Amino acid sequence: MAPYSPFLFLSETDMLTAGVSDAGRSVDVADEVFRLLHTGDYVMGGLDQNSHGLALVFPKWSPFPQMPVAGPDRRFSAMPAYLGGRFDLCGVKWYGSNAANRERNLPRSILTLMLNDKDTGEPLALMSAGALSASRTAAVPAVASRYLPARPPRTLAVIGCGVINRAIVRALLSQHPGIERVVCHNRTTSTAHDFAGWLQDEYGLDTAVADTARECVELADIVSVAASRTAPLHLEASWFTAHACILLSGPMSADTDLWTSSRIVLDHVPLHESYVNDARRSEDVSASFAAQIGGPVYELIDAGLLPPLARFEDLGGVIAADSAPHPGRTVFIASGMAVFDVAWGSDLLRTARERGIGTELELWGASPDTVASPATEGASA
Amino acid sequence: MAPYSPFLFLSETDMLTAGVSDAGRSVDVADEVFRLLHTGDYVMGGLDQNSHGLALVFPKWSPFPQMPVAGPDRRFSAMPAYLGGRFDLCGVKWYGSNAANRERNLPRSILTLMLNDKDTGEPLALMSAGALSASRTAAVPAVASRYLPARPPRTLAVIGCGVINRAIVRALLSQHPGIERVVCHNRTTSTAHDFAGWLQDEYGLDTAVADTARECVELADIVSVAASRTAPLHLEASWFTAHACILLSGPMSADTDLWTSSRIVLDHVPLHESYVNDARRSEDVSASFAAQIGGPVYELIDAGLLPPLARFEDLGGVIAADSAPHPGRTVFIASGMAVFDVAWGSDLLRTARERGIGTELELWGASPDTVASPATEGASA
Repeated sequence: MAPYSPFLFLSETDMLTAGVSDAGRSVDVADEVFRLLHTGDYVMGGLDQNSHGLALVFPKWSPFPQMPVAGPDRRFSAMPAYLGGRFDLCGVKWYGSNAANRERNLPRSILTLMLNDKDTGEPLALMSAGALSASRTAAVPAVASRYLPARPPRTLAVIGCGVINRAIVRALLSQHPGIERVVCHNRTTSTAHDFAGWLQDEYGLDTAVADTARECVELADIVSVAASRTAPLHLEASWFTAHACILLSGPMSADTDLWTSSRIVLDHVPLHESYVNDARRSEDVSASFAAQIGGPVYELIDAGLLPPLARFEDLGGVIAADSAPHPGRTVFIASGMAVFDVAWGSDLLRTARERGIGTELELWGASPDTVASPATEGASA
Repeated sequence: MAPYSPFLFLSETDMLTAGVSDAGRSVDVADEVFRLLHTGDYVMGGLDQNSHGLALVFPKWSPFPQMPVAGPDRRFSAMPAYLGGRFDLCGVKWYGSNAANRERNLPRSILTLMLNDKDTGEPLALMSAGALSASRTAAVPAVASRYLPARPPRTLAVIGCGVINRAIVRALLSQHPGIERVVCHNRTTSTAHDFAGWLQDEYGLDTAVADTARECVELADIVSVAASRTAPLHLEASWFTAHACILLSGPMSADTDLWTSSRIVLDHVPLHESYVNDARRSEDVSASFAAQIGGPVYELIDAGLLPPLARFEDLGGVIAADSAPHPGRTVFIASGMAVFDVAWGSDLLRTARERGIGTELELWGASPDTVASPATEGASA
């Protein structure tokens, strides 16, 4: 019998129908992933099995007038992963990103996720991964907020009032019903007011808009940083409460004291080791460091002001250790990993199958009885 | 207005309908790609813009019973590329490969290619890439056969009688109507007889089966090597004619003389530089070299018996130089690049659109007037 490889296409609308906006569920799934990362039940790209992905890096200038050139947030990237546990499949997230997309009423990043059978490589699903990516990105600091804060949070500071922090705040509120007040700061103040208005309307929360980052963070139990890379952001240790839990989903620059006097927890130590190894092989190590959220930490390690990466804590380790919360200030650094897309995508695929959501496609082009065997057409790559 | 991002799904059957088996056309497209590679009108992955791809490398052993482990041809790989010229788009080939697929009547590799708008990242097409990959792999040595042989070929030797050489022979015959005789050799002789029978039936050619590789190549004008990595293959310089053009699409081991006394032409020098740089960063440089078709060449460079890679010729350069054919023996080494998939896929997509082949999908899930704007759901990766 000829092979039959049906798979499911899920559009962005299908993903919403399947529950991609369910913040609580996405946080539970991300929590599972951190446990699997800690035990090692995953494979990401490359010989070190921890590569973030492989990007198309466009040149600053090209003699070819049509060739894409470097621009704000402009790149393509492929992020493959295998994830074990109850997920037990392979996948690749592939996206193109370009700040200029806004002018066309398109998201900055246009993403898809393909999931595959771990043994045969057959596609299981192709899904639009816009809301999926936002949701899994938001779930990561929300998992951190389960284990890292010194006390149950009441006041939340939001630095950067874009789509990422909107998703993060949704995820944090799903975990912390005790949050009563949200202080918002954004380079463009009107955006902070829009964000505060949304929180009032949707959650009935007490909100404020702070003109400066300093005022934004000064009373906060939790701080979520997800500002644009194009907005210079500088924070100082003395501005924060002694127990602040600072969740970084975007870059910040800070005084040395903030890094050396805080407990630093990484999302996953081997990912950062892979970043640093890649940066050391690049022509400009400082520029490569600067492109990463963990960049300031890597610089301080090289300067001898922080211990080597291998001695850092990561969130999977914190969860596994199950120790009492650290009483002081914590900085959590999240960089994004394809295993989170694979996990959350796999969960939503199960729902889509159960509920008949999506469009069925057939790889070989016909039903099992009519398709010609493709075995003789197999190819090397 | 909300965005509308339609794209086309092309199954394996759709690809056949669109003309993926048209060997002559695939060779013309591959010839164009070599010219673009030579001028530099492309971007492949990574900081060096020449990475072959990013693989999931499974461990030899795992404490997790479900985790895939290393096995014959077992890996996943993501191969992103931008290609300019008349193509001018981005794409990623993604495949899972596993020799054990044969037991399930599936091709060893199951491949898909996604093509994307170079500016916005929107998908243009998702296509099954089994026949596409075989066809573009075959087209590469066929392009080489236009420029490298010392004289118009009459006798062809085929070492390895699997699906890859079947596609290569099709492509070579599309270029060289003067080929009269094909001598076939395969580890399992019955497979060589099947191959010879196919050539007699389909092309009416004079064929022979050689029990040894030596007998296979001894009178050949062109030799195509595409044997399985699991079949040890050793060739010696003295076995070949003085004008033989040896096209390597799979690995071979040979005496030093074969490498040092032949003109060696690579598919693309920067690709091999990227392979060598990657290998030098791995734990076992020799093992990494051994995994590449160019491995014996890299070893001889390190031993000082061949010049540095930067001084090698590649096919794009040979085409651009437009000089008279080299009279002596030539070895051509092809390793595969995503730009060939992007080019051939793009050409077939144009045909599919013109002829109404394939299934239209919509990324956001609905027509332009009814879909909610996804701009507020955009996400970082």
